[in-house]
Amino acid sequence: MTTGATGRPGRRPGPTETREKILACARRLFAEKGYDGASLRGIAREAGVDPALVHHFFGGKQGVFVAAMQFPLDPGVLLERIAQAPRDRLGETLATVFLDVWSDPARRAPLLAVLRSAMTNEQAATMMRQFVSATLLRPATELYGIPPIRIQAAVGQMIGVAMLRYVLEVEPIASAAPQELVAMLAPVLQHHLEHG
Amino acid sequence: MTTGATGRPGRRPGPTETREKILACARRLFAEKGYDGASLRGIAREAGVDPALVHHFFGGKQGVFVAAMQFPLDPGVLLERIAQAPRDRLGETLATVFLDVWSDPARRAPLLAVLRSAMTNEQAATMMRQFVSATLLRPATELYGIPPIRIQAAVGQMIGVAMLRYVLEVEPIASAAPQELVAMLAPVLQHHLEHG
Repeated sequence: MTTGATGRPGRRPGPTETREKILACARRLFAEKGYDGASLRGIAREAGVDPALVHHFFGGKQGVFVAAMQFPLDPGVLLERIAQAPRDRLGETLATVFLDVWSDPARRAPLLAVLRSAMTNEQAATMMRQFVSATLLRPATELYGIPPIRIQAAVGQMIGVAMLRYVLEVEPIASAAPQELVAMLAPVLQHHLEHG
Repeated sequence: MTTGATGRPGRRPGPTETREKILACARRLFAEKGYDGASLRGIAREAGVDPALVHHFFGGKQGVFVAAMQFPLDPGVLLERIAQAPRDRLGETLATVFLDVWSDPARRAPLLAVLRSAMTNEQAATMMRQFVSATLLRPATELYGIPPIRIQAAVGQMIGVAMLRYVLEVEPIASAAPQELVAMLAPVLQHHLEHG
């Protein structure tokens, strides 16, 4: 029996219920197998649905992860903003995107939660490492031919500034204006990305 | 009754016991009042000893903190190594000292513990912020006249690389040779410290 014409729920789960079930299975599989080890097909099998439905809801494994982990960034959106920048303004664009994301309190709290759990939990660190590699580091390397270690040096600069500014709240970097930080970080990020 | 000529312990506590008592009181006071708010005199009062004895054991408040928190770095030793570098090799010296410290597993574990607790505990973050400001950032500013935000940008670069290399263990930065990292980081650190 499916949902009747009256709109009353029947025994078949509605789309919201199915979506939640997929996300719960995804969380379990990502935690068990890491980002690389879990597949869209495996998540669908666990949830007892067709892989096409998972694809329809979330667009792909990356989208399932972002939704399941309530990950505060969509790497696809980030990459698109960065890909539009001219090569000689990559550093400035990265610094600007980075500060935009962190300046928004609604995204900062979950970002901090992600950083904290990766710092204190091996399983979370593995998931995060694989997810960031697959969705940001590898595509950026392919897009610009920049060696991964150079991208990591730039990411390290930004993560460290975020820790001092938003976690340890060290002054004066905690209260500095975003444009002051962009001016300070842009040349360094550009250097990292240019000297591969 | 004090320790007799035979060396048997009397009722007065021996030096080890007194030292431990001072450290226990210091841990409580640093946690309660932060690094800035706790004084050597206050720690001595809590422990029921003369401030001169605390000074004799630990050299000063900084030494009490390093001992009480089992802090894996002595900022005085670090500053001395950095102060000996010519100004135009500050970046290289900082990168080298930084990798020396982190490459030593005996110091890495407690450093990670410090970073983790500062990431997850507000009280630990306050203590750490005040301690690092008083013992590293302010002296470095006075020594070289470098604006604190510039020193913080350099420290941010190093903390971020440490997180990627030692906590998240992202490849290839996790397995890179120290000299490759020094070559990569030195010019960036030098830039931060020169362009105040």
